[in-house]
Parts: sequence; structure tokens; C-alpha cells
Amino acid sequence: MCLESPRDLSQIGEFGLIEIFAQVGRGLGDDCAILNLGGPERVCVSTDMLMEGVHFRLETTSAWRLGWKSLAVNLSDLAAMGASPTACLLAVAWPVEIKPAWIEEFRDGLAACAKRFDCVLVGGDTVKSPGPMCLSLTVLGKIADGKAVERSGGKAGDKLFVVGPLGNSAAGLHLLSSGGGESLSEDDRAVLIAAHLEPEPQVALGKALAREGLATAMIDLSDGLLQDLGHMARASGLGAVVEAEHLPISSAGLQLAKESGLDALDWALSGGEDYRLLFAVEPLATERMEQVCAEFEGRDPVCIGALVADAGMKLHKDGLWISAPQGGYDHFAKNPQGAEEEET
Amino acid sequence: MCLESPRDLSQIGEFGLIEIFAQVGRGLGDDCAILNLGGPERVCVSTDMLMEGVHFRLETTSAWRLGWKSLAVNLSDLAAMGASPTACLLAVAWPVEIKPAWIEEFRDGLAACAKRFDCVLVGGDTVKSPGPMCLSLTVLGKIADGKAVERSGGKAGDKLFVVGPLGNSAAGLHLLSSGGGESLSEDDRAVLIAAHLEPEPQVALGKALAREGLATAMIDLSDGLLQDLGHMARASGLGAVVEAEHLPISSAGLQLAKESGLDALDWALSGGEDYRLLFAVEPLATERMEQVCAEFEGRDPVCIGALVADAGMKLHKDGLWISAPQGGYDHFAKNPQGAEEEET
Repeated sequence: MCLESPRDLSQIGEFGLIEIFAQVGRGLGDDCAILNLGGPERVCVSTDMLMEGVHFRLETTSAWRLGWKSLAVNLSDLAAMGASPTACLLAVAWPVEIKPAWIEEFRDGLAACAKRFDCVLVGGDTVKSPGPMCLSLTVLGKIADGKAVERSGGKAGDKLFVVGPLGNSAAGLHLLSSGGGESLSEDDRAVLIAAHLEPEPQVALGKALAREGLATAMIDLSDGLLQDLGHMARASGLGAVVEAEHLPISSAGLQLAKESGLDALDWALSGGEDYRLLFAVEPLATERMEQVCAEFEGRDPVCIGALVADAGMKLHKDGLWISAPQGGYDHFAKNPQGAEEEET
Repeated sequence: MCLESPRDLSQIGEFGLIEIFAQVGRGLGDDCAILNLGGPERVCVSTDMLMEGVHFRLETTSAWRLGWKSLAVNLSDLAAMGASPTACLLAVAWPVEIKPAWIEEFRDGLAACAKRFDCVLVGGDTVKSPGPMCLSLTVLGKIADGKAVERSGGKAGDKLFVVGPLGNSAAGLHLLSSGGGESLSEDDRAVLIAAHLEPEPQVALGKALAREGLATAMIDLSDGLLQDLGHMARASGLGAVVEAEHLPISSAGLQLAKESGLDALDWALSGGEDYRLLFAVEPLATERMEQVCAEFEGRDPVCIGALVADAGMKLHKDGLWISAPQGGYDHFAKNPQGAEEEET
């Protein structure tokens, strides 16, 4: 087997596990590992673990939606490489008090997601948990040799795009955990909550961008725009600028933030779990890329910034450039004292 | 992707999840799923979850041994298909109180196992657990088309073989959980404990048996001989006979059982976690198979019984045939009242 590119293991690094991965002999930092298993196509694999009380609460999700989301967030990793989902495996620890009817509903949600994205559940393991529920999904996908879009391929001057709103998931989480939303329509509340509990991975978009070689770098937005863009920029040996006024924030998100006395920009920058693709495109390729977005997403991409030669990340907002130190994006929005303001 | 054979999901069935897997369109029941991803070889995948307090106790294992075992038990699933390990992924929930030094030791054990069996750790996910530690490993292997040994290929008259002792893992668990072993040498105690905490998957043996087409059916002994043989026999549409007197029980296991007033036969039949391969061989192929065992394991295989046309499983012991009803093997040894005795 030839390992072509291992997945991002930066969290493991915190715990001193990163050295395991030194044996792979290639730079770390992608959504999936890309394996050469001898066939004409490459195999992408990724695994995620979802822990009750950390990643989800049984009080605020239906079993169906948890089943859907547990697979969807993994498929988003495949989408970020441009790979076609093929198979998945589920390992799960059920708390002893979980009822069979709940598990059947979970199964239905997972099966619906698998069917929707042509991904066959081929195996798994179930155990009883003396504590919280724990779900681990592994997905396998295929992609033509040389077509996988890594995080590291961005070039200075590439424009950065997303398709669809940012921050809706964080707004939905706010509704679920803190209530509110009285000023919103029933439909708007439902859209925000669905963005959090039932995300739709952009599998077709990612495949099309990869097939046509339109994205130089790509990542899915799981940890928030600033953090994930930071991963992409650093992997590419670059920095990035983000235009705050260009970020696609939904009217529902804006309304909820206003009602709650919060800033919807924070949700868009650092809320996480949007599972939109963030991709870098060479200026000459943007026209064709826009056609692809129209075809596969039915809406226009939004240019939110660009990759630049200077390391670090700068946010352009209200005529000011706000910079965050390299590696310091995790709590950027929550700890603005860590950011420096510069006159534009 | 063409799914060729999905892994055994019988536990999931208990919880009503089995229907998910109906979509695969093939009979369930193997150690790994076998995928056709377009290359010349087939890809075997398997996933397992290990939960603290259920599958291991931090008080009775070192971190190194847990790292080793968490991968080894998955590699045993690949061995049971005859596949060559290629890659693995680790998802883990660390309890908040776990120290970095512990994790480094865990990492070293896992890395040692990965290196020993030519399996590259290509990805993973780490989360914090508010409860017990939870580990999920996924392994990928390769095997030539048509060479994978499924559980279902056994024929009536095939002889059943294992290489290496049965019940040592259960004896080791007894030492760890109940103490004792004063009548054993230090070395013997260490061997029994290592069998439980640091099992050695029979990867090379499984590969050789598959490559030469010497095994008609194969399974790894994780749940105990009677239960796993039951899986193989039912998958093959057959029954099985087991010769109690032929079971390879170590002198250390016999000694510990004697000292503890227990029956080492119970450990061998139902103790579980031996991770030896159990394989069925046509009578004409046994000579070549013995050569392969000598080459790859350095010891002789032991014939412990045979597959037979009549459904159900019979144990031949002390001149009696003891039969267990179909599907009733789980607690066979612990609930002998469920068994019937027949005069031989």
C-alpha cells in the first residue's frame, strides 16, 4: 500500500499521539487519508467519533437525525477530497437504557443518509456502554488518481468560495440550547435547527470540483471558518484574508442574533459544524466553477476572501484589518483580546 | 463498489439494527466485509469498538498492552479472511483524567503492533470523554480476488483445526480478576496474562492458508470456540462435532484451573478472546496444511473436530455426546442445564 496523504490529526497532536503518524512519511493535514490499494482509483478513508454530551445531546436531537448526522459529517470529509462515497462502517456503544425503538429510528436516519449519498453500510460493531453513547463512523470513498483535492494545494491569489450560508448551524445550536427565536417564523427556526441536526454534506459539489480540477485546495467547515481556513492556509504555506461583509449569513441567522443580542458574524467565523465546503479557485477558473455550483447546488458561490503570500489570517471588517496570530484561531471570536486591530 | 460479503453483525441484530444491512443484498456473517473497489485485489474492512469497563479495565492492563490489543483484535479479523493488513484508523475518546504519558505508552503499543503486522495507521479522531474510555479501530486489508476465506465455505467432512492453545486468554483473565496462580511458575502466569492482554493475531498463517486455498472456512476465536464454531457451521449450512479430549489446553491453564477448582475445558470452549484461527480443511489437504502451519507458526495444528451434515453442535466428552440447541451456545458451558446428554 502506498499512503498518499493522511488526514488531519492535529487534535491527536495535543495528546502526544502525533508521533504515531510520523511513520506515514508524508505531511499531515487532510480530511481523509488517500490510499493506493492497487486499483485504477485511489481510496479515501476517514473516521470520526461522536460522544454523547460532547457532540450531541439526546435531549435535543431525534434518533433519526442523529443517525443521519453521524454519517453525514463523515461524508463531508469525503466531499472535501472530491471523493465518491462507497462504503461505511458503524461502531457504536449503546447505553443500557436505550430502547429498541430508538435504535430503529437511528438506523432509519443513518440508512436514509447512506441511500441518499450512495454509500453502503458494510459492517460494524455494537457494544453496551456503562456510560454515554459513543458512535464511530468510518467512510470509504473512491477518486481518480491525481484528482483528490488536498488542503495543501492553494496558491497565493486564489479566491476562496463557499456555497450556502455560514453560521446557521451555530444559530440552530443556540436555539436548541438557549431557546429564543420568538421573532423568527416557524420555517426559519426549523431551517436553523436542521442546519445543526441534519447537515447536508456537499458531496456532488465536491466531486464535480475535483473532477474538473477547479479547486486548488478544499476543506469542509467543521470547526468554524477561521479555524478551518487556517488549516488550509498553513497546509498551503500561505495566509488568508477574509472579507467579513461578504460572508453569506442567512436572514434567519441575523434575526436570531439580533433578538439574542449576539453577533451573527461570530457564528459564521467560529461557530463550526456548517459542513459547507470551503475551496480555493484560481481567478481564471472562477467562471467555470460558477457553472458547476449552479448545476450541483442550484445557487451561486460566494467569494469570501483570498489566499495570500503572507502567513497569518486577516479579517477585513468595518474598514479595519483584524489579525489573529498563527495557530490562535480556536477561540478567536470568543477571546477577541487575543486579536490585534490594525488600521486598513 | 460491489460488496462481496459483509461482516458478522449478529450482535447488532439483537438491537434491531440488522435491517440496515439488508440493503447489502448478501448473507451476513463474516469477520470482514470484502469490497471490490475496482483494483485487481479485494479490500477487506472491519471495525471494532472496545469500551472501558466492558472490554478492558485500566487497573489490569498497561497502556502499552491496550494499544497493542486494540489493533491486534482487529487484525485477527483480517487474518480470518486471509487478508494482508494494509492500513488502520483509530478513533478514541479519552477520559479527561488520562495523562499524556499514558497516551504515549498506548501509542507505542499500537505502533508496535502496526509495525509488526505491516499495517500503517493512516488516520483517526480523538475526543474527550465525560465517561469511560472508548476505542474504535478500523482495519483495511487486501487479498487476491477469489482467495478470501469466508465462514460459509465449509463442507461436511472437513476437519477443524487450531494452532496454539485454547483457553489461555480466559485463564489470564481469571488471574487478573480473581488472583491466585500461586502453584504456577512466574513464566506460566506471564504467559496466561499475555494471552489475554497482548494477543498475537495469526496473520501470516491466515494469509498462507488463503493463498494456497487450504481452508474451506475460517473464523477467529473471539467469542469462544463453541460460539464461533457455531457461526461457521451455521454459515456453511452444517453442524459440527468437537472432541473435548483433543482441545489443546496448556499445562499452565490446566494447573490454574485445578488450583482454582474450575474446569479448563470451560475456558477452552467458551472463554473467548483466544484470537486463534479456527479453520476447516478437506481431508486430502491436511498434509500440505500441516507444512504451512510448521512454516508459519512453528508448531503442529491440532484437529479438534469436524463439520458434519446434521445441524447443531455436539461435544464428545468422556464417552458422551453432549449437544447444545442451535443458537444456544453463548452460555453453553455456564448453563449446562440447557444441554442434553446422549449416550454415545
